Amino acid sequence: MEWLFKKIGLVARHSKPEVVQSLLELARHLEQQGLHVFIDRDSVTRAEAQGLTLIDRNDFGKIVDVAIVLGGDGTMLSVARLLAPYRIPLIGINQGRLGFMTDIPLHTMIASVSSILQGEFLPEERMLLQSSVMRDNVEVAQHLALNDIVINRGAMGQMIEFEIFVDNQFVYSQRSDGLIVSTPTGSTAYALASGGPILHPTVPAIALVPICPQSMSNRPIAINDSSEVEFMLTRGEDARVHFDGQSHCDLMELDRVLIRRYRNPLRLLHPLGYNYYDMLRHKLHWGERLL
Amino acid sequence: MEWLFKKIGLVARHSKPEVVQSLLELARHLEQQGLHVFIDRDSVTRAEAQGLTLIDRNDFGKIVDVAIVLGGDGTMLSVARLLAPYRIPLIGINQGRLGFMTDIPLHTMIASVSSILQGEFLPEERMLLQSSVMRDNVEVAQHLALNDIVINRGAMGQMIEFEIFVDNQFVYSQRSDGLIVSTPTGSTAYALASGGPILHPTVPAIALVPICPQSMSNRPIAINDSSEVEFMLTRGEDARVHFDGQSHCDLMELDRVLIRRYRNPLRLLHPLGYNYYDMLRHKLHWGERLL
Amino acid sequence: MEWLFKKIGLVARHSKPEVVQSLLELARHLEQQGLHVFIDRDSVTRAEAQGLTLIDRNDFGKIVDVAIVLGGDGTMLSVARLLAPYRIPLIGINQGRLGFMTDIPLHTMIASVSSILQGEFLPEERMLLQSSVMRDNVEVAQHLALNDIVINRGAMGQMIEFEIFVDNQFVYSQRSDGLIVSTPTGSTAYALASGGPILHPTVPAIALVPICPQSMSNRPIAINDSSEVEFMLTRGEDARVHFDGQSHCDLMELDRVLIRRYRNPLRLLHPLGYNYYDMLRHKLHWGERLL
Amino acid sequence: MEWLFKKIGLVARHSKPEVVQSLLELARHLEQQGLHVFIDRDSVTRAEAQGLTLIDRNDFGKIVDVAIVLGGDGTMLSVARLLAPYRIPLIGINQGRLGFMTDIPLHTMIASVSSILQGEFLPEERMLLQSSVMRDNVEVAQHLALNDIVINRGAMGQMIEFEIFVDNQFVYSQRSDGLIVSTPTGSTAYALASGGPILHPTVPAIALVPICPQSMSNRPIAINDSSEVEFMLTRGEDARVHFDGQSHCDLMELDRVLIRRYRNPLRLLHPLGYNYYDMLRHKLHWGERLL
Repeated sequence: MEWLFKKIGLVARHSKPEVVQSLLELARHLEQQGLHVFIDRDSVTRAEAQGLTLIDRNDFGKIVDVAIVLGGDGTMLSVARLLAPYRIPLIGINQGRLGFMTDIPLHTMIASVSSILQGEFLPEERMLLQSSVMRDNVEVAQHLALNDIVINRGAMGQMIEFEIFVDNQFVYSQRSDGLIVSTPTGSTAYALASGGPILHPTVPAIALVPICPQSMSNRPIAINDSSEVEFMLTRGEDARVHFDGQSHCDLMELDRVLIRRYRNPLRLLHPLGYNYYDMLRHKLHWGERLL
Repeated sequence: MEWLFKKIGLVARHSKPEVVQSLLELARHLEQQGLHVFIDRDSVTRAEAQGLTLIDRNDFGKIVDVAIVLGGDGTMLSVARLLAPYRIPLIGINQGRLGFMTDIPLHTMIASVSSILQGEFLPEERMLLQSSVMRDNVEVAQHLALNDIVINRGAMGQMIEFEIFVDNQFVYSQRSDGLIVSTPTGSTAYALASGGPILHPTVPAIALVPICPQSMSNRPIAINDSSEVEFMLTRGEDARVHFDGQSHCDLMELDRVLIRRYRNPLRLLHPLGYNYYDMLRHKLHWGERLL
Repeated sequence: MEWLFKKIGLVARHSKPEVVQSLLELARHLEQQGLHVFIDRDSVTRAEAQGLTLIDRNDFGKIVDVAIVLGGDGTMLSVARLLAPYRIPLIGINQGRLGFMTDIPLHTMIASVSSILQGEFLPEERMLLQSSVMRDNVEVAQHLALNDIVINRGAMGQMIEFEIFVDNQFVYSQRSDGLIVSTPTGSTAYALASGGPILHPTVPAIALVPICPQSMSNRPIAINDSSEVEFMLTRGEDARVHFDGQSHCDLMELDRVLIRRYRNPLRLLHPLGYNYYDMLRHKLHWGERLL
Repeated sequence: MEWLFKKIGLVARHSKPEVVQSLLELARHLEQQGLHVFIDRDSVTRAEAQGLTLIDRNDFGKIVDVAIVLGGDGTMLSVARLLAPYRIPLIGINQGRLGFMTDIPLHTMIASVSSILQGEFLPEERMLLQSSVMRDNVEVAQHLALNDIVINRGAMGQMIEFEIFVDNQFVYSQRSDGLIVSTPTGSTAYALASGGPILHPTVPAIALVPICPQSMSNRPIAINDSSEVEFMLTRGEDARVHFDGQSHCDLMELDRVLIRRYRNPLRLLHPLGYNYYDMLRHKLHWGERLL
């Protein structure tokens, strides 16, 4: 057998006992095939690992050829942001419930992963966003996001006010609960709950989706993914910017958030036969064929 | 002249200089007509009042026959909650921008108020909601609201999960940014921004409007205003309940919020010729007649 | 046994063979109990009826105490409009798929109907709408509707323009695909697909729901059910008004459609234990209890 | 002066008297500059033309270098479809009300057009869609559209049912009033009224926007503009397909409509200083800058 990927990183979510078992099973199988396996040290205990190699997932980028994630879309999001600078492809295995990105079910894990590692896969590129938070022209934070960058009101319950510029052209001022700046990947997450459109992963666009805007004419808009979005907070005492809903940064009035496409796309490896629309239809309970 | 109301309470918003001038002008005019005028002591300074009677607005309920509010809808909301137990009617004067409830423009203030105080008015009743926050079967907070009771996620940006019961019947469980429980009055405020229907003030209904629900089938529903709504927080670390967006209470998991119609409606007095639809069309920029 | 209803009308949808079998089974069971059974002559053939009494369903109003409908919500709608003038209550039996109104499943039909006919039921009243189409001040058509009265563009694909008055007060002019005037019963039908709110059957309201309005501020509004709605077509070459989607009338420019609550509500008889929210949750796939 | 375009076609809408005056004024001005002017013969009468050259607009493609349209977006749509095969650029002059595409106001017409014809312009490319209607594998109609291809129910008011495939992959079956397949240009037209997203003209995407879908999870989706969309009518007695709302074709059950990007984009020439977001903000009444 010919292996396209030889150094394999494994990450699991949280370390639920049943997930750890699956991870260890997969690790031992891959080692038996002669592959080099590196397990994220936060995903299992040393006792559980029993001689398998544990490393910090922050070192995956320098070491592994591919990373396999066992868990949900949330785990995929955090690993994707971590590995994006290194162009390491990702494989996602779900724990029972199909995810938008974790498309391989547990019961086909061994076979599916083996085929993919031997080169039988459908690759898919997903755009990430990078954003800088600017205060008085100084960058105070910088983050990546695979789903979305959300700027919203805090706990006080008062709407915020802001202005949007795209490529330095003024687009609108808005009073609302906030704004979601979403990739196609994020278009099926929070942006969808807020009334945004679904964007197929091959559409090179960024969606701007208002959250509960006071003016009813403020509608979602998709712009070219080569554009730069500038958000300026004009009013709001406790606004925050969230990155994939996993980290955040407090904002002050007149802070600006600059958002653009990140230089490296994320590479997802799917089993042959993967179909985006099948996944979507399943997740959204869309109608099946009638004829 | 015959006056239907003789003891008049006056409240202004914030005490902007130009608002104070209008309030004093109105107060002196009413005194010249032989009416008893009581000014909220937080609305003007003693120096500005120059001998006019200042009292605490909390005492309006025991003293005045009618209260006149100069300001915006926000001021109306807070005065309405304060006076609701006493059945004191309200008159609303706006400061330039028509409000949903402050319908009298400044330039007709003297004439409009005089007519109303002599009995020439269109009365309108508006329902309030009362709510109790229950923790381990103990009531930890109790509040009124004229617009809405909003239970939402806090600053962390994670959706909350909750269950809704109406008259002890289970309605649904939901994962979302929160829920708006709105009166017809509040149906043109935050509930509208969140996709809720407009309810005419004479519709005896309470609207339940989800905020960015994860499931797309969770739609706004209007129930009879004699019903009791029970909200139970099943998941959410920093959820809060807001009353008219002006006061709030932190919630813990398994806290329940009980909401029902308050026994006394608010009574608004409008000038003759007032028309709800005219106001709505103006505020929402609806189309004017074409023929 | 004591029977509250003695003369029973039976109607089935279309006359599918399996529905006819159920209808005949029910009819024979009721006759064995000594009840008088009248079967709609369009629901079965004379051969199938084998001596059971067949009458025209138009005569139900003068003869029967209660009507039982086997079929879907569509059949309920047409029978409801027919019997509304006579205040005959309705019982709905579905053929496998729960309907919004046909809530008794086939497999409990005999037991459920028997209990209801003996007086063990939850009655529910549903408002109907009556409408008159006026041309040059002459009424050219008059119809009832249990779900909705829909005025929309025809096949040409051009939007129509119209004006709405409520109780002779101008509400708005609108350019759109049309307008749905809906009862609470109809609020879960076409009005829901068009973005309208769900109205609980006990809410005494009429919903006005625009269909694809050109202006984004044209939102659904619910008005008191004692109000009269006037629709005037100001532009549209092939507009039509539809009654429960089952009959229709062509409109000409300047035609007016007057809509108000019909004097008699429809009375639905549900088995004990019926729960509107359970039905709604099932039909809309709302979340079940998590705790 | 150097002219980049020398043969100029002129088209006006309908031939309203004031539009004809503007068209003749522009024609004479251009002739005085030594340019060759060709006027659409349906836009003016021979008497009005007074010696100016009249030709059939169907011959524009073979003769003119650029076409100037006086009128609204509707006129632009029909001229665009006519000239798309010939790659003739278009200039749009509105008659008082800013259009999404007719961006030059009448009062700057002479100066703006002169500048553009001399090469001072911002060019913008807009995708068109081409569609084939297939019946029993035979093409029965073929049309272009700059805004949208809309397949919808006819006058009977019954929803239609259909299946959608993208690049031969099944996407969903749906029951609704119809489907809008829209270009970015059409995303601010009917698709917007039906809840679709705004797509910036530079986003290479096609939007599929359901019209009043029965299932609430059927949401707008944008796909890559290199994809082919196949619509198959599975149920619907009087369905139709409309091209830019200006021509149509009746559909029969099992008819298929194939839709893909047209090989030639439309080229719009805007005055320097043109800004898509300014136009959008003006048309949609979006908020202006507050700071």
